Amino acid sequence: MRYELYYWPSIPGRGEFVRLACEQASADYVDVARAPRGAGTGLAAMMRLLADRRLDCPPFAPPFLKAGKLVIGQTAIILLYLGERHRIAPKSAAGRLWAHQLQLTIADLVAEIHDTHHPIASGLYYEDQKPEARRRTAHFLAQRLPKYLRYFEDVIKRNARGHLAGARVSYADLSMFQVIAGLRYAFPRAMARFGRGYPRLEALSARVAELPAIAGYLRSPRRLPFNNQGIFRHYPELDSSPAR
Amino acid sequence: MRYELYYWPSIPGRGEFVRLACEQASADYVDVARAPRGAGTGLAAMMRLLADRRLDCPPFAPPFLKAGKLVIGQTAIILLYLGERHRIAPKSAAGRLWAHQLQLTIADLVAEIHDTHHPIASGLYYEDQKPEARRRTAHFLAQRLPKYLRYFEDVIKRNARGHLAGARVSYADLSMFQVIAGLRYAFPRAMARFGRGYPRLEALSARVAELPAIAGYLRSPRRLPFNNQGIFRHYPELDSSPAR
Repeated sequence: MRYELYYWPSIPGRGEFVRLACEQASADYVDVARAPRGAGTGLAAMMRLLADRRLDCPPFAPPFLKAGKLVIGQTAIILLYLGERHRIAPKSAAGRLWAHQLQLTIADLVAEIHDTHHPIASGLYYEDQKPEARRRTAHFLAQRLPKYLRYFEDVIKRNARGHLAGARVSYADLSMFQVIAGLRYAFPRAMARFGRGYPRLEALSARVAELPAIAGYLRSPRRLPFNNQGIFRHYPELDSSPAR
Repeated sequence: MRYELYYWPSIPGRGEFVRLACEQASADYVDVARAPRGAGTGLAAMMRLLADRRLDCPPFAPPFLKAGKLVIGQTAIILLYLGERHRIAPKSAAGRLWAHQLQLTIADLVAEIHDTHHPIASGLYYEDQKPEARRRTAHFLAQRLPKYLRYFEDVIKRNARGHLAGARVSYADLSMFQVIAGLRYAFPRAMARFGRGYPRLEALSARVAELPAIAGYLRSPRRLPFNNQGIFRHYPELDSSPAR
């Protein structure tokens, strides 16, 4: 089955977590809004599907995945679904719930990262909420980010296999890699000593980047670079010296 | 099996979504941190479990549910799990994914509601972020809340059975009821004409309140009232006249 991924074409955003999973799974997928404009492709095709009144299960927002007749919204659920069909999740039911739980905690972290530059409203420009962004980011880097990173570092330690969940690399590891890469892009100063504080996360991140399917993908034009329109944005005035 | 629900004892918070599901399912559950202090009960028991180094799958934060040997964190996943075991979710696999997707969108809304009074940092007092809270709440009530409510109203309309997903009341409906009750507590002025704008959500909410198991629960001491320590807080200075 060829999956159809629907996501904004100009940012890695939340769509990237799905792309990484599809790439590692060697799944057949088309990145609909980024494909050349055609009958069922291009941004217009995504907007048409979002506005389709005949959909029984309309997604609230991109990304969403079309898998045959199913239309699945919410990044973590797309990954739950893919994890049941490809070798990118633990095998047991309990293991799959656990990977899903980690993914939702990653999603919570991602939402907090987004709000560092948009603490007042996603509908306003960053420039219209700069003082608030500075205040929120300072707290995020000092309190929230270390809390999340300590948690994930500890999860890898408890698993004792060098990654987050189960016996093999899962979509949660791929997402963690993406979050760490995004944090490095957004906050190079604050992340300068990252590996010293979180050696297991650093090693996991390096390991994911070297997986053959992922390494190939990262070199390909399918991989979108970070930019200041997405979740992870680099505003030097928000970055700070390392908290630890 | 007797489920053990772990959540902060003094607020409805995210624990309430799990309580409503357990009550509607007539599940046997103990609200651990609210039970009289004992061998495995009371707040101390929750803190002990959170700090337990032997847990393979440590939750990031309450609520979490102990079901036999499983420890499940993340509200939406607890509900996904309960929905597979009790008659509070659609029967088909696709229907269950859909209810779960709606629950995650409700969770996104709940996080945005929380941030109306804590736009800078959850670790700061409301009093330390009042101007920012006023700005964020104004945008939330004018833009974000209507976007979410229009979406859920439309979902009920498409289902044509008076509730969100599938052929019977699901945990997503119970959660929607709780969100509407919380919004009414927090923003009585902004919610004054709610039923006029969102008649299906209003009807769903009334219907849930009259379900025999839920009606009994709401009258019981097990139901915690809203208060200004939780997600839904009433600060008159944040409330505004109705946007529609």
